[in-house]
Amino acid sequence: MNKEARIFNFSSGPGVIPTPVLERARDEMLSLNGSGMSVMEMSHRSEIFEEILSFAEQGIRDILALPNDYRVLFLQGGASLQFSMVPLNFLPSDGSSDYVVTGVWGEKAVNEARKCRGGVNVIYDGKRDGYRTVPDQGELRVSSDAAYIHYTSNETIDGLEFSYDLDGAGVPIICDASSNILSKPIDISRYALIYAGAQKNLGPSGVTVVIIKDELLERAPAGLPTLLDYRNFAENNSMPNTPNTWGVYLIGLVCEWLKELGGVTSIAKINAEKAAMIYEAIDSSDGFYIGRAKRSARSRMNVTFQLPTAELDGKFCTQAEAAGMSGLRGHRSVGGIRSSIYNAFPKTGVERLVDFMADFAATNG
Amino acid sequence: MNKEARIFNFSSGPGVIPTPVLERARDEMLSLNGSGMSVMEMSHRSEIFEEILSFAEQGIRDILALPNDYRVLFLQGGASLQFSMVPLNFLPSDGSSDYVVTGVWGEKAVNEARKCRGGVNVIYDGKRDGYRTVPDQGELRVSSDAAYIHYTSNETIDGLEFSYDLDGAGVPIICDASSNILSKPIDISRYALIYAGAQKNLGPSGVTVVIIKDELLERAPAGLPTLLDYRNFAENNSMPNTPNTWGVYLIGLVCEWLKELGGVTSIAKINAEKAAMIYEAIDSSDGFYIGRAKRSARSRMNVTFQLPTAELDGKFCTQAEAAGMSGLRGHRSVGGIRSSIYNAFPKTGVERLVDFMADFAATNG
Repeated sequence: MNKEARIFNFSSGPGVIPTPVLERARDEMLSLNGSGMSVMEMSHRSEIFEEILSFAEQGIRDILALPNDYRVLFLQGGASLQFSMVPLNFLPSDGSSDYVVTGVWGEKAVNEARKCRGGVNVIYDGKRDGYRTVPDQGELRVSSDAAYIHYTSNETIDGLEFSYDLDGAGVPIICDASSNILSKPIDISRYALIYAGAQKNLGPSGVTVVIIKDELLERAPAGLPTLLDYRNFAENNSMPNTPNTWGVYLIGLVCEWLKELGGVTSIAKINAEKAAMIYEAIDSSDGFYIGRAKRSARSRMNVTFQLPTAELDGKFCTQAEAAGMSGLRGHRSVGGIRSSIYNAFPKTGVERLVDFMADFAATNG
Repeated sequence: MNKEARIFNFSSGPGVIPTPVLERARDEMLSLNGSGMSVMEMSHRSEIFEEILSFAEQGIRDILALPNDYRVLFLQGGASLQFSMVPLNFLPSDGSSDYVVTGVWGEKAVNEARKCRGGVNVIYDGKRDGYRTVPDQGELRVSSDAAYIHYTSNETIDGLEFSYDLDGAGVPIICDASSNILSKPIDISRYALIYAGAQKNLGPSGVTVVIIKDELLERAPAGLPTLLDYRNFAENNSMPNTPNTWGVYLIGLVCEWLKELGGVTSIAKINAEKAAMIYEAIDSSDGFYIGRAKRSARSRMNVTFQLPTAELDGKFCTQAEAAGMSGLRGHRSVGGIRSSIYNAFPKTGVERLVDFMADFAATNG
């Protein structure tokens, strides 16, 4: 086998990265642009790295058409550190916050917020229904005095996604978009802060992208630990200390790839098509495949379903792996199958999967 | 020019990475070990990634001969986040800590500790002398009731290094070894916690290695933010959330490279030779080159010196760059020249530099 042959990688994250991006990173490994250095070996204060950082920032700005009063910051620590940074920066000790919980990631965000001093109101909790759906806008009663509303736009484990941008009716919206950022156009005006661990749609793990509105930034209190203070990152061009230089570089390349593809409008169409193909295979299987999420809440990024028995789930994954498709096993907490089809996951892989699903159902149904 | 031709890279960090490590990372970029995936695309919960993490951990354990009651953890956020995590975990609100400050990094650690509740005693402050030296053990009056003593084993900006392992006389020693970890043998029994941003001697930026003794770990309080709680990393094999998978992979490769070279005993000898060559060039220049650090505190990692005028400093750097040596400009706060010669910096590069120094002095002296 060609030692560079690629598999169809349905991993939920870290997930697939566009092959042309990896090829470029490979080719530039020993010497970026004739510098005689890898990007990993460059001072983050050098002109060449500052250009790399600007390039990545501009990529995200362009793709999401960000207005000038939004900053793009590169942090570390993943979404999990954001779960703490958000309340530390924006939940006053005498104030309160609203959390919309539609899955395990939202739950974790609540747990971290509760370690802080202000109030945490869970205004929607999907746990009682086993995380099968997301609320309509009309179902949510936002506290008008909340410091912010937090929600998770896509939940990877159960495979739930909001199909709309939440409206805070004046209350700042903070969104964990780790698993669907840059996958479709959004109405940025609705958001005060969007954060995302990079390892699904942006690049490798170890970088967190934060998009934050100046107005919100100004509310951060003084005296926070330097590395937990958004303002410090904004004032120092994301470099109060050494950033994850490799990760920022890869994000720039991924954004370039996405822009060449036509940006979020194009990728949204492709993502919708990919997801529709798998959901169609589920829905037309006469109940052999059972979708996990309620139809209106189905994720375009993580398609979750199960087979008639856990044994068949296992057989499905094993045989799929042998057929060149890896990472299909559902999260241990819910079992079943999860096919994560982020931006970089190719349509040919989805075609392979739905063919396999039809064959497997015919043989085992 | 060969597009993969390498320069002599004296960058203070992120710094040079062993070329064979970069070559291997390049060759495995599209498919690690026939997996059909880049290491960046793998689930951190996969068996293959768990092996990568164990390999990196074992590399550090082997090189430093760590006893079983020390853990090796991989975090994010660099040394700067450690400046906060250390007091948040180990400085009780009714307790106090001792800090030995021999440079800007130690100063920053103090500033972050002062945002916490417990007391912060600076038991040595080199600032009054412009950070030219480090204290002898005998000069330090450690508070017997301190929760810990913190020091920086190598300061990159002024080029100062401790030539000995500090003795806490029963008080736990916490050491920021970002810029000299794995550069020489240490007496691990003296340390309760050693931390290091990876981007000098370990790998790329975006990973922090923490070596911590179980005994200290047990002192951490409950209720900390999950991502700021060392115990949470220890209990979850460094993966309470997605780690910087690429960075951990590179650290494993760097450790393998170092072990093949003969480990810390061998590299210490090489490092001493490299540094001695440059210091000898300084000392034999009849005062044309003036070393910054007091002789007993001279760093083997960052050799700092200056020329008779700032103009000559600039000319030196420009001509060196043209001769294939980059990153020699001193930190903006102190000026002059800084040649950072971490583990991976080749002796041939030092030879080139000292030849250049002789020529430059002859022409401009």
